[in-house]
Amino acid sequence: MDGPLLTIDRADDRPLGVQLVEGLRRGILSGLLRTGDPLPSTRSLAAELGVARSSVVAAYDQLAGEGYLEVRQGAPTRVAPLAAPPGGRPDPPVAAVTAGEASAAPSTAVRADGDGVREAARTGTDAAAVDLRPGRPSTARLDERSWRAAWRTAARDAVPDDTPPDFGSPRLRAEIAEHLRHARGVTCSPDDVIVTAGTSDAIALLASALRILVGGTPRVAVEHPGYPSARRVLERRGALETVPVPVDRDGIEVAALRGILPAPHAVLVTPSHQYPLGGRLPVATRLELLEWAEASGALVLEDDYDSEFRHVGPPLPALASLDRSGRAVLVGSFSKVLTPWLRLGYLVLPANPALRAAVAAVRADETCPVPGIAQAAMAELLANGAVRRHIAAARRDYAHRRRLVIDALDGVDRAPLSGLDGGLHAVVGLPSHAAAERVVARLAIDGVLVAPLSEYSAMPGEGPSGIVLGYASPPDSRLAGALARVREAVAEAVRTLPSARRLR
Amino acid sequence: MDGPLLTIDRADDRPLGVQLVEGLRRGILSGLLRTGDPLPSTRSLAAELGVARSSVVAAYDQLAGEGYLEVRQGAPTRVAPLAAPPGGRPDPPVAAVTAGEASAAPSTAVRADGDGVREAARTGTDAAAVDLRPGRPSTARLDERSWRAAWRTAARDAVPDDTPPDFGSPRLRAEIAEHLRHARGVTCSPDDVIVTAGTSDAIALLASALRILVGGTPRVAVEHPGYPSARRVLERRGALETVPVPVDRDGIEVAALRGILPAPHAVLVTPSHQYPLGGRLPVATRLELLEWAEASGALVLEDDYDSEFRHVGPPLPALASLDRSGRAVLVGSFSKVLTPWLRLGYLVLPANPALRAAVAAVRADETCPVPGIAQAAMAELLANGAVRRHIAAARRDYAHRRRLVIDALDGVDRAPLSGLDGGLHAVVGLPSHAAAERVVARLAIDGVLVAPLSEYSAMPGEGPSGIVLGYASPPDSRLAGALARVREAVAEAVRTLPSARRLR
Repeated sequence: MDGPLLTIDRADDRPLGVQLVEGLRRGILSGLLRTGDPLPSTRSLAAELGVARSSVVAAYDQLAGEGYLEVRQGAPTRVAPLAAPPGGRPDPPVAAVTAGEASAAPSTAVRADGDGVREAARTGTDAAAVDLRPGRPSTARLDERSWRAAWRTAARDAVPDDTPPDFGSPRLRAEIAEHLRHARGVTCSPDDVIVTAGTSDAIALLASALRILVGGTPRVAVEHPGYPSARRVLERRGALETVPVPVDRDGIEVAALRGILPAPHAVLVTPSHQYPLGGRLPVATRLELLEWAEASGALVLEDDYDSEFRHVGPPLPALASLDRSGRAVLVGSFSKVLTPWLRLGYLVLPANPALRAAVAAVRADETCPVPGIAQAAMAELLANGAVRRHIAAARRDYAHRRRLVIDALDGVDRAPLSGLDGGLHAVVGLPSHAAAERVVARLAIDGVLVAPLSEYSAMPGEGPSGIVLGYASPPDSRLAGALARVREAVAEAVRTLPSARRLR
Repeated sequence: MDGPLLTIDRADDRPLGVQLVEGLRRGILSGLLRTGDPLPSTRSLAAELGVARSSVVAAYDQLAGEGYLEVRQGAPTRVAPLAAPPGGRPDPPVAAVTAGEASAAPSTAVRADGDGVREAARTGTDAAAVDLRPGRPSTARLDERSWRAAWRTAARDAVPDDTPPDFGSPRLRAEIAEHLRHARGVTCSPDDVIVTAGTSDAIALLASALRILVGGTPRVAVEHPGYPSARRVLERRGALETVPVPVDRDGIEVAALRGILPAPHAVLVTPSHQYPLGGRLPVATRLELLEWAEASGALVLEDDYDSEFRHVGPPLPALASLDRSGRAVLVGSFSKVLTPWLRLGYLVLPANPALRAAVAAVRADETCPVPGIAQAAMAELLANGAVRRHIAAARRDYAHRRRLVIDALDGVDRAPLSGLDGGLHAVVGLPSHAAAERVVARLAIDGVLVAPLSEYSAMPGEGPSGIVLGYASPPDSRLAGALARVREAVAEAVRTLPSARRLR
């Protein structure tokens, strides 16, 4: 490593800790620091930079939490293996090798539908059915004592006679900022956080803000296949035009996005795991996306819906963490981390005064839709560690259920299993939409509900074929039985298909 | 009274109780039954119609609750005086005489801003200021024990891993239907009720549904002056065109509405008290409005924001109660009845399958934004009578504060006080917008916040001038002090004005 690891700019108005973390992260992402490189001791780096040692310790801790550094007792802190080298894609992903992932399918991750905006109709489900449509986490491990205590505490406050603050309660905004730092490696100030009634409210709010910014009908690029409810919320509540952009195994194709002229005013992306196909956007592509946004003056709306559940490979930095030009907005929710029953989410706004003014204008007319008492209880659940403990417990359950999915569904001929690197659901590819429909219908008769991939198409009739199944919610015993029926239905559909030759 | 009072149609699929109530109400509104007319005894009417006596008792009770009937121990039940005879307006309103209201000002009612969609900026308020801007009820009388118990009960339920039902929890929908029957005299089924995150969510939802129904850009008529936040929510979230319709002392001018060609797809009205000027739409005009809607195929969106607080005169039936053609949508909230801190409201949909399908499509993509646990707690507060008790206690407080307003502000030369027949705020008319601005600015320096009427204009620069002040929230002692300062500022502004002659 040549030159200084990082420099501290006293004229920079960002806090010292932020400069430290961002400088080191940038060093890793830029290739200045490589996998396995040892970092200086906290004492020597602190001395070199003229800062308190505790600041360096905190920065190393945070980067370890984000998966960038490996801290071992009695050994130097080292740079952790990254999923994709920032230089480009010719090398095989380091993480896949490191993690020894056996699946032969392309490595994709699938969204466990971020915010309860369910894709399939709710009608016709009976109690005996096993619902494997994406969108439901498990609440079985939720610590009920903490849950009740949080609401009891919140209900003890005097009842105000006013609306909640437009951007949410200061305490909850601070707790969300802290949660994002720990769970997601996103450094933001409480002032950047806006409390929302889940992801759809966040998207509707951004759509209205875009109308103000654009002064007319905004055009927003969306992933194809992608999140159909989000697309419709944009179109209906914001009255936007949406423009589909194809997705490859890594996520959105930035080259295709660049080809849209005139450039859209914003793009809605799911870089953590493309929803539904599950690609994880490499860091280089993230930077390209941000460069495009800066050059074209567009906003990047990053739907970070289930980044807390990453099974293979370290997390990659949120676009908000890489953004230098005030164009990346982070959209998140507690639907996966706790339950969509709560209807609680957030936005993290970049340093972009025009955007903030537009969002403030919209919220001033509508006020924050989240009950004040729900904000108080959520802040309590974050502060007392209940959320952190729940994530840890749920992760273990999900890892086990994910294994059940692989055991049951991997290796079926012409039905590749994918999307299992992160999130709470998987994709089973099928040779045709007709085959996928047959599987969905057959399983419904068997009492197992899954979603066809065709529902995610932004261009009707086009896009990959297969089924999407969420595995987080049902208990193991019911899940295993349902998966056996899925395997049977998939195998049968593939077997009875016209041969590949006849299809041509 | 000639002919049968009412008939029961066994082929009608509406429940017997509904037929009884609607038949009697229609008899009163049509003039068949007049003020003071005695009704048959419950026993004889039951025998005549061949129904259970308890059904007739329940119908009489409900109509008494709605203000149509007067029930006295040991005397026959009689038709109560109505505010305006249904035949037209030539006669002076009976109710004003009955109630002996002394105010010389035109009888208008003013909205205590239905849903916390505050008109004025929140910034710049300090703790010492008395906030008389409309929008805040009082929570001082809220029974804290019931409040806490409701949340404790709700938090004891197992935590579901799914979103709340799109239209809200069945239990809350049933409790709201029951509340509306008692508190508002609106007869609806739980299936007609949709839970919302307050009025702005309801309006945004209707705006999106209108987009689906119209298949393009809907045009929505709004009152001028009117609720500015609602207008902006319609325009932004629904991307509608709004068309202002002037308001007279009774409310919206239906003749002006009829003159808009082509007819708008919907009209947003506040017939209980026009917001902000406070007219109460006479029954005859309500029926004209509904006739217009039926003839033109438009929807009538009735924002019924504070109908629970009626100080002078009986309540008039909601448009939803008079509607026969499936065109009237009732929009309500618990912001005034409890607190806007809760962000809880509702829609009541008419029998209109196309509208219901459109609303269902929007909610299916967005899901219900109200936390499941908040719905459970609200249902509990309605079921255990806490809401009913709170309304009764708050009514007494508000009546007293209203009297303080009249005592302090009535009779100022060239500054007529109005809007006090219902709701939680008043209007002080002023000779010019400049005078109103001077009063608002002067009071802000004195630490009293009020809203200028100009903020409600749907046609910038046009419309009546004055100030709007909410009186529900501050305790009596602070309110009295603030009102004294308001009187001073108003009197001074009028005194130092150029004379009326010079203005011409």
